[in-house]
Amino acid sequence: MKRDIQALISEMTLEEKAGMCSGLDFWHLKGVERLGIPSIMVTDGPHGLRKQTGDSDHLGIADSVPATCFPSAAGMASSWNRDLIGKVGVALGEECQAEDIAVLLGPGANIKRSPLCGRNFEYFSEDPYLSSEMATSHIKGVQSQGVGTSLKHFAVNNQEHRRLDIDAIVDERTLREIYLASFEGPVKNAQPWTVMSAYNKVNGTYASENKFLLTDILKEEWGHEGFTVTDWGASNVRVDGLSAGQELEMPANGGMGDRKIVEAVRNGQLSEEMLNRAVERILRIIFMSMDHKKPNATYDMDEHHLLARSVACETMVLLKNEENLLPLSKGKKIAVIGEFAQKPRYQGGGSSHINPTKIEVPFEEIRKLAGDTASVVYVQGYHIDKDDLDAALVGEAKQAACDADVAIIFAGLPDRYESEGYDRKHLRMPENQSQFIKEIADVQSNVVVVLMNGSPIEMPWVGQVKSILEAYLGGQATGGAIADLLFGVVNPSGKLAETFPMKLSDNPSFLFFPGEGNRVEYREGIFVGYRYYDTKEVKPLFPFGHGLSYTTFEYSNIVIDRKAIKDTESVNVQVTVRNTGSRSGKEIVQLYVRDEESTVMRPAKELKGFNKVDLQPGEEKTITFTLDKRSFAYYNVALQDWHVESGEFEILIGRSSEDIVLRDTMHVESTVTVKIKVDRNTVVTDLLNDPQRAPIVQGLIQQFQEGMSATLGDLQSMEGMSEMFSEMLKYMPLRSMVTFSQGAFTDEMLDGLVYQLNQL
Amino acid sequence: MKRDIQALISEMTLEEKAGMCSGLDFWHLKGVERLGIPSIMVTDGPHGLRKQTGDSDHLGIADSVPATCFPSAAGMASSWNRDLIGKVGVALGEECQAEDIAVLLGPGANIKRSPLCGRNFEYFSEDPYLSSEMATSHIKGVQSQGVGTSLKHFAVNNQEHRRLDIDAIVDERTLREIYLASFEGPVKNAQPWTVMSAYNKVNGTYASENKFLLTDILKEEWGHEGFTVTDWGASNVRVDGLSAGQELEMPANGGMGDRKIVEAVRNGQLSEEMLNRAVERILRIIFMSMDHKKPNATYDMDEHHLLARSVACETMVLLKNEENLLPLSKGKKIAVIGEFAQKPRYQGGGSSHINPTKIEVPFEEIRKLAGDTASVVYVQGYHIDKDDLDAALVGEAKQAACDADVAIIFAGLPDRYESEGYDRKHLRMPENQSQFIKEIADVQSNVVVVLMNGSPIEMPWVGQVKSILEAYLGGQATGGAIADLLFGVVNPSGKLAETFPMKLSDNPSFLFFPGEGNRVEYREGIFVGYRYYDTKEVKPLFPFGHGLSYTTFEYSNIVIDRKAIKDTESVNVQVTVRNTGSRSGKEIVQLYVRDEESTVMRPAKELKGFNKVDLQPGEEKTITFTLDKRSFAYYNVALQDWHVESGEFEILIGRSSEDIVLRDTMHVESTVTVKIKVDRNTVVTDLLNDPQRAPIVQGLIQQFQEGMSATLGDLQSMEGMSEMFSEMLKYMPLRSMVTFSQGAFTDEMLDGLVYQLNQL
Repeated sequence: MKRDIQALISEMTLEEKAGMCSGLDFWHLKGVERLGIPSIMVTDGPHGLRKQTGDSDHLGIADSVPATCFPSAAGMASSWNRDLIGKVGVALGEECQAEDIAVLLGPGANIKRSPLCGRNFEYFSEDPYLSSEMATSHIKGVQSQGVGTSLKHFAVNNQEHRRLDIDAIVDERTLREIYLASFEGPVKNAQPWTVMSAYNKVNGTYASENKFLLTDILKEEWGHEGFTVTDWGASNVRVDGLSAGQELEMPANGGMGDRKIVEAVRNGQLSEEMLNRAVERILRIIFMSMDHKKPNATYDMDEHHLLARSVACETMVLLKNEENLLPLSKGKKIAVIGEFAQKPRYQGGGSSHINPTKIEVPFEEIRKLAGDTASVVYVQGYHIDKDDLDAALVGEAKQAACDADVAIIFAGLPDRYESEGYDRKHLRMPENQSQFIKEIADVQSNVVVVLMNGSPIEMPWVGQVKSILEAYLGGQATGGAIADLLFGVVNPSGKLAETFPMKLSDNPSFLFFPGEGNRVEYREGIFVGYRYYDTKEVKPLFPFGHGLSYTTFEYSNIVIDRKAIKDTESVNVQVTVRNTGSRSGKEIVQLYVRDEESTVMRPAKELKGFNKVDLQPGEEKTITFTLDKRSFAYYNVALQDWHVESGEFEILIGRSSEDIVLRDTMHVESTVTVKIKVDRNTVVTDLLNDPQRAPIVQGLIQQFQEGMSATLGDLQSMEGMSEMFSEMLKYMPLRSMVTFSQGAFTDEMLDGLVYQLNQL
Repeated sequence: MKRDIQALISEMTLEEKAGMCSGLDFWHLKGVERLGIPSIMVTDGPHGLRKQTGDSDHLGIADSVPATCFPSAAGMASSWNRDLIGKVGVALGEECQAEDIAVLLGPGANIKRSPLCGRNFEYFSEDPYLSSEMATSHIKGVQSQGVGTSLKHFAVNNQEHRRLDIDAIVDERTLREIYLASFEGPVKNAQPWTVMSAYNKVNGTYASENKFLLTDILKEEWGHEGFTVTDWGASNVRVDGLSAGQELEMPANGGMGDRKIVEAVRNGQLSEEMLNRAVERILRIIFMSMDHKKPNATYDMDEHHLLARSVACETMVLLKNEENLLPLSKGKKIAVIGEFAQKPRYQGGGSSHINPTKIEVPFEEIRKLAGDTASVVYVQGYHIDKDDLDAALVGEAKQAACDADVAIIFAGLPDRYESEGYDRKHLRMPENQSQFIKEIADVQSNVVVVLMNGSPIEMPWVGQVKSILEAYLGGQATGGAIADLLFGVVNPSGKLAETFPMKLSDNPSFLFFPGEGNRVEYREGIFVGYRYYDTKEVKPLFPFGHGLSYTTFEYSNIVIDRKAIKDTESVNVQVTVRNTGSRSGKEIVQLYVRDEESTVMRPAKELKGFNKVDLQPGEEKTITFTLDKRSFAYYNVALQDWHVESGEFEILIGRSSEDIVLRDTMHVESTVTVKIKVDRNTVVTDLLNDPQRAPIVQGLIQQFQEGMSATLGDLQSMEGMSEMFSEMLKYMPLRSMVTFSQGAFTDEMLDGLVYQLNQL
């Protein structure tokens, strides 16, 4: 329905307009009855609805209505499956319609800078491209149902420690290439109805008051059309926020923020025009929600549960599988060990913590699939809520392991180890679980470890077990999905969306995380995740992009359709993948780009494309990736734009970031000239690189060189001297001509030369 | 002799005074004959004199008079022997007196940030304490002879790449703790007559124009009494330099700089008073030199050569010695292999390159000590000036190695691989040498590698040879010293003053060295050298402080005389070391301090004391270290002072940074209160840490907590919730009380609270 929002705004009082800029209560926006503006409800997500009807909170504390609990984002991203994430979005949208929710708060697109961040389970990846692709699909899915999303937490909210006062110091290139890039794709390609600003400061200014982020980049550069909402309680100085482009404050502020806005308009600190624009953005979304409302919508809980199960199957990652211990064959005696097998951890703590419609228990699901229930026993093994070994439980478990053909140990992180609100201090599992795995491995050589955790852990026992299945936080159907994968009902197809390091200190942010006092410097810059491990040649426990299957895939025939392009053009890369095993399976094909030479620091390689392909035994498919300027570019801060340096680029096709199977090289030619400002200290090389300036400088150099040679004799004949002299010449600043001329070339002549060069 | 320098200055014309601020020619300062001010000569060092009588240059190109070539600083520092460095200083001073040199340009106290820096051979260490101790001894030695020094290159000159225009971006804490600390000790404790400023910029301003460095820190904080001199050709805008505290420009500037100074005084841009103070500093040193001049001084070349040999013995480091292959016993058939055995590399390229009085050739010296000359053969093996293997030479060398009982391979970096003026691109030896070592090791199990290089190399062959002697650039007596050590005439006693990494990418500066364009960011901060390897748990090839001996030492009985001190007090640490072997030997005992807990990032440990002790077989000595505030402190930028956080510190005694053999703990109590400025976003924890502010905040928290508990029920009972809630409270900013109070606690009340807290 078309409405004249401008006319509506002109009918509103100043107080009504200010009122639109903060919540009615914890979960509702204000309406204006006399003008037909409804009060809409928003609610936490993103992997399920947390609609509170009683007490309200933003920490996952009070109860909420039942809703389907899908896997957390850490797992979702491991599917690398855009369509699948889209389907989850559709299902979430249906549940929102049924529950009369206008906006579901999510997805979270923050980058996993450190594996310690307590909220990593809610985020997708350490890689901005993968993260932005997943977020885009999620948003498109939800919004296809006429329900809004809130892309969060914008931006640079990469730790929970001191999240309300931490100031994240990040250089602009890193911001653009890593932390903002993860938001840029979804905003441009999926137009989330709302974007939620982060609690923290970014380079000195609260995200909720950050004009650079909220207006310059989000609205003006990226063209965001919806409104921005504060994280709950993130508003600091309300009028500063509104001026910066922060339209909505949540939750309700007791009228305080509204009064400040009214005052600011009255005393001229804030233009009414700016307030009107904010209200317009909010009204647009309110009416969009109204127009898309499906009256009496319902959804099929069972169907959504089945979807949750099939999704969970794709989000789990088979990290290790020696001697094809998995899939389990029928008829084996199985010891299911570990309390998590009965009390699975399937979601994280905090605002995303929901009330599931049902829960599948892993042990029960394994029993169901095993057929012969007598062959499957359960022993507790350890206490989830304790860190100390229980000798009696260990003894019992060892006995059960001995008596079985295979031991499946369920282990992972208890709720208290990772949550919104605080960060982990280390990457270890509880000592009783870690030690426990070793004890079982001592008596049983066929050990499968199933992990339930939202973020990487150290695995000191990795060499002692044959198989490891990373189940992440798999949602309410995690039990069934695990059983499906263990028995091969479904072939594992997830791959890691984050690096699992050998040890915490290997992480690039280690020396500077979580900062000193209320300041954290992102000193590792663009070297986040595999960008660091690859470039620094630090061997990870499991690399980014790694994941095994029960079948095998062969890669062949990489074809780049144009071996040389301009940076304004695009190029297609084709590759053929064949299922060479005897089971159907899905493979995630990854494309990385490597800049062979650059004047700026660049990672060893960067993910620029991926595709998940479903193949029957013997089947092959050809996949096409399209690369454009952005695939080759870095962000040039001086240009304030993405820039490709002319040169050779390597196109790498990999099973993972570590396992590159095909490669070829192509050339990209820049169409942009980078013009440097010349001053008395500009060095010769920087001028020789400029075709217009080179001839002038060339002449001067020659004079200088002849003078030097006369003085110093034949330098070429002295070992080491020739290189020293050539380096000296290359990096000689213009002013050195004054220094060396002993008065013949004056400072004034130098000023003239600099002026002349700057005219070119 | 007492002189009235003020009176003298008052007699000088403005032009004469300006003239004193630049050189007469390449190596001389100006004099003023009519006033009895002599023209003094300075000359390159620091490990020998480079007095040029013909053509002049600052690159080690043209000839210089013969002088004793002592080991380069990289080796000197490996002696960890303050007295020995002092003796070298005395000898250098004697040679300067004999050659009528007033100031010897050196020592270099720049920190080895990256092993790639082409000039690392001229610098002491990656550790500022070791570096400053070595520089202090050097300066005291030279200056004891009435000859001045020039502590260089002040500051942050840690690469040769673009040294004339690079801008080194370093945070102040890192500057203070690492890069300036290496200069601070020598300035305060040895008062070098002159300090040479660096070519590069530091945080945006050329070192030669950097008031923060040259005046605020060097003169005012540290009390430097001499003058500063530019590195040759480093002057940029002369008047800016003089204003910043840069007294002398070198070399001569053809009168240009002088004229600018005169103009600046005339037009009021520069006060004549400031010029007078500069001239006063220069005259003080000129007359100091005059007063200490020893007419007709001579020195004994043979004696200095013998000193050079004994010094070289202490500077070499026995890195590896399996099965006690070394020392060589008499009567063995020895194959001496590698061109370096005939053409030793014993000094580096550039301004420190001197003309030695004689050169000892390793092969000849080995022959002499072997007794039976027939048992020692030489084969060339490879070409120093090539990178490709020569199959014929390899074949001959393998045969010689087969025929011998032991093969001694001389290898290392050719001149072209490292020099002043450019940096290395990698850490590899020439391929023909690296490959060559493997080939020989294939046919002979008793291989000793003797290395001649100025900085660390990768050693892919490390596991294939039994012994490695790092000879560094050992000066003119390197041949004799190597022979002395190989045969055990002298027991090795050097230890590494720098980490040898496994591979280049392990180095902390790797991702950010040598910078982009003319800007290099020191993003690793204080984590330089072992501070990084230790803290990041990166295993080096050979750790800082490592070096073997032919005898064994036992450490015992660590005694800290006071287990708790205030930060204004000092403490003594004693430890007993015993020679438990059958040879006399020297051991370098290292003391490191570890801060057990800190609110700022601190390295795993830092060197705070060392002592080299000479022990006969069976002898034991007790060593005492004195630690004071600085031993425990970090530089607190907010306080603008060194600061110790109250707490426990571990005192570690080690054979190396990796091999810690004794440890004990003590407590240091701070006498300084760090008062933070409170604002609306100050978090609760930061206020609770302040005893005066805590009570007020405590009350507020309690009210808040009671309100929350009423709303949210018993949080303690929910898994994960209790930690989330307690973290939330700890890091809650004051303004959250406004947010959560829903109008009861207003912004105005908050302003009042902030004001009240700031009064305390």
